[in-house]
Amino acid sequence: MDLAACRALDAVDPLAAFRSRFELPMGVTYLDGNSLGALPGETRRRVEQVLAGEWGQGLTRSWNQAGWIDAPRRVGEKIGRLIGARSGEVVVADSTSVNLFKLIGAALQARPGRRVVLSEAENFPTDLYIAEGVTRMLGAELRLLPRERLLTGLDADVCVLALTQVDFRSGRLLDMAALTSAAHSAGALALWDLSHSAGALQVDLTAARADLAVGCGYKFLNGGPGAPAYLHVSTALQEELHSPIQGWLGHRAPFGFAGDYLPGAGVERFLAGTPPILSLAALEVAVDLWLEADLAKVRAKSMRLGELFIDMVEERPELGLVLGSPRSAEARGSQLSFVHPEAYGVMQALIERGVIGDFRPPDNLRFGLTPLYTRFEDIFHAVETMVEVVAGGAHLDPRWAMRARVP
Amino acid sequence: MDLAACRALDAVDPLAAFRSRFELPMGVTYLDGNSLGALPGETRRRVEQVLAGEWGQGLTRSWNQAGWIDAPRRVGEKIGRLIGARSGEVVVADSTSVNLFKLIGAALQARPGRRVVLSEAENFPTDLYIAEGVTRMLGAELRLLPRERLLTGLDADVCVLALTQVDFRSGRLLDMAALTSAAHSAGALALWDLSHSAGALQVDLTAARADLAVGCGYKFLNGGPGAPAYLHVSTALQEELHSPIQGWLGHRAPFGFAGDYLPGAGVERFLAGTPPILSLAALEVAVDLWLEADLAKVRAKSMRLGELFIDMVEERPELGLVLGSPRSAEARGSQLSFVHPEAYGVMQALIERGVIGDFRPPDNLRFGLTPLYTRFEDIFHAVETMVEVVAGGAHLDPRWAMRARVP
Repeated sequence: MDLAACRALDAVDPLAAFRSRFELPMGVTYLDGNSLGALPGETRRRVEQVLAGEWGQGLTRSWNQAGWIDAPRRVGEKIGRLIGARSGEVVVADSTSVNLFKLIGAALQARPGRRVVLSEAENFPTDLYIAEGVTRMLGAELRLLPRERLLTGLDADVCVLALTQVDFRSGRLLDMAALTSAAHSAGALALWDLSHSAGALQVDLTAARADLAVGCGYKFLNGGPGAPAYLHVSTALQEELHSPIQGWLGHRAPFGFAGDYLPGAGVERFLAGTPPILSLAALEVAVDLWLEADLAKVRAKSMRLGELFIDMVEERPELGLVLGSPRSAEARGSQLSFVHPEAYGVMQALIERGVIGDFRPPDNLRFGLTPLYTRFEDIFHAVETMVEVVAGGAHLDPRWAMRARVP
Repeated sequence: MDLAACRALDAVDPLAAFRSRFELPMGVTYLDGNSLGALPGETRRRVEQVLAGEWGQGLTRSWNQAGWIDAPRRVGEKIGRLIGARSGEVVVADSTSVNLFKLIGAALQARPGRRVVLSEAENFPTDLYIAEGVTRMLGAELRLLPRERLLTGLDADVCVLALTQVDFRSGRLLDMAALTSAAHSAGALALWDLSHSAGALQVDLTAARADLAVGCGYKFLNGGPGAPAYLHVSTALQEELHSPIQGWLGHRAPFGFAGDYLPGAGVERFLAGTPPILSLAALEVAVDLWLEADLAKVRAKSMRLGELFIDMVEERPELGLVLGSPRSAEARGSQLSFVHPEAYGVMQALIERGVIGDFRPPDNLRFGLTPLYTRFEDIFHAVETMVEVVAGGAHLDPRWAMRARVP
């Protein structure tokens, strides 16, 4: 594949027009949208409107008049359409970490006969930290097993099977429907972290019969740095589960200022404090943009981008890269991982040259494929730049003495 | 007092120049800054810079290069200066509700011999909801007493005395130093919610020897709708307490992606998920503006504004308003409450006429006094408009059938 061939693919890409909806820096090849999605141009206009008009001019009147108070439910409902939830099952709230805490805590409290949260040791670290904290708080147990042995851990003590749909390092896609079904067979609930899958592929919580889910607003969804997260509670569970973090916004009548807490009628009971409106407005713009996209086309392009990247790397064995992701596109989310002994240095040298991916310890180069704004041409540039870096030894620069880096 | 006299007070107000730093709607008298502070003009410029420059152009590089990752600590440190905290005792994180959950949970977990959280039934409702949820989760007890009997409840079972420094309805200022000292005498910790006091008066956590505190970013602090909140843990307690919500940002090495959770070195261990950067940037602008203000002058002006308001209301007995706040300025925070049987209708009619305060059930008219942008002239307009409303019966309009309203 040469540059012309990549450009030919871009020329017939049915999603190509979406790229103009984002503001991207000149001279940069951005393959880190799985860590922080790019800025939709519309976001600037909308946030300015919230600042100058709704906050500055409307002041407290905007809670009702500008729809701020409904935003957690309204934006949640829109996200629900991206992840195959039913109406009334999703709200935007807090961070992914806090939402995980609420849902695991609620499940353990509702089903005191089952004291185990089951997960895999390779789950996203913060998910495990949260699960460990909430199980300790409730005198429950966090049981970690290797992925291939998860099913053996599904016994009558398991309350929740808590997993991330796409592995943050390798990009491996877990079988949500099968694992959920196995959890149900054991009488357990299935909770899915969609942070690395929503916006990357067609998630269908309803078809998978998933019970609970959480996800991140700032990765594939493009909601902006630290955008609020979302959570999903299936309709059937909404009466049974109660949030352990009983904030005023989850109250049945948040404006009654009553002394007693009464949980809200539906998934709204999992709201807690006042939502960060500026960040939430940015997230809504990004989600509205997503609702214009055909997720089947997004998935198809993501798979082709990944294939192209792997093919090009395999044509350049001098790179010394070992694929850390499944070879089959069907088995991956929308990211690629390559292992290299000097991964940190390679990534730093790439970033200096305007090719942005990220590094995950100990030796992973990670590249996100975000079909709304990633071109086939970008893959070509990324691989060519890597060849240049490794051939010239730029990755061995002493400045890249190993150190931790932001995700 | 007539309009000319009020304008004469404004002419010699040493804080008068601050008003030009805010964008306020024309024709509006805003007395609700205790619910949602006004927009600092600089916020628009700064947020646009974060959007277009840091997010749009910098993308993931901005976590380090634009200082995003340090923002929770950096802005926390600045807020610490407003509330008399020591360096290293405050971070910005989550919402007030979630922060309360973390601190009460941490205290109960650290001191299992003490199973009671003591508060007053008049505490801010969400604080009580949160306390009820976290005590239930840990098999502890929430003990509520009338304010005047709080001290009788401080026995050897009390782990935390959790109070709000300024009563959200009446504006009454509690004696933080005396109540903290009483808590300590009983071997308990004192936790203060500063949501209605920081930015309203000179809070001095260190002088009061307070152990723990939380507070809101969007009321007197002017951080914007749903701005992130903050929490304080006194230096002496930082090693003993562990956040029950163990998110990645509270980890000692958040970028190591290790499987095991190790709490951060100081108050940072109470961080959880990724902070909402847009909202946090807006909060930082507001806090920077606060650091230019002399809090002694803010307090003095707040007291004079309140005196003027009460004096003018007392001159107009036909208003039928009963003061719901302490008569003495020293005993109040920076808000006034008046009781009126048709309070909801009065406030709606006022808002229609551009005088914005808020209504708190069942019968409170609440007016916030925010000396950085409230003028003595505004008080005159508010009272005159109220006279007009009540004299004309506008508050009895059938549109104001009682209903809940946003805070």
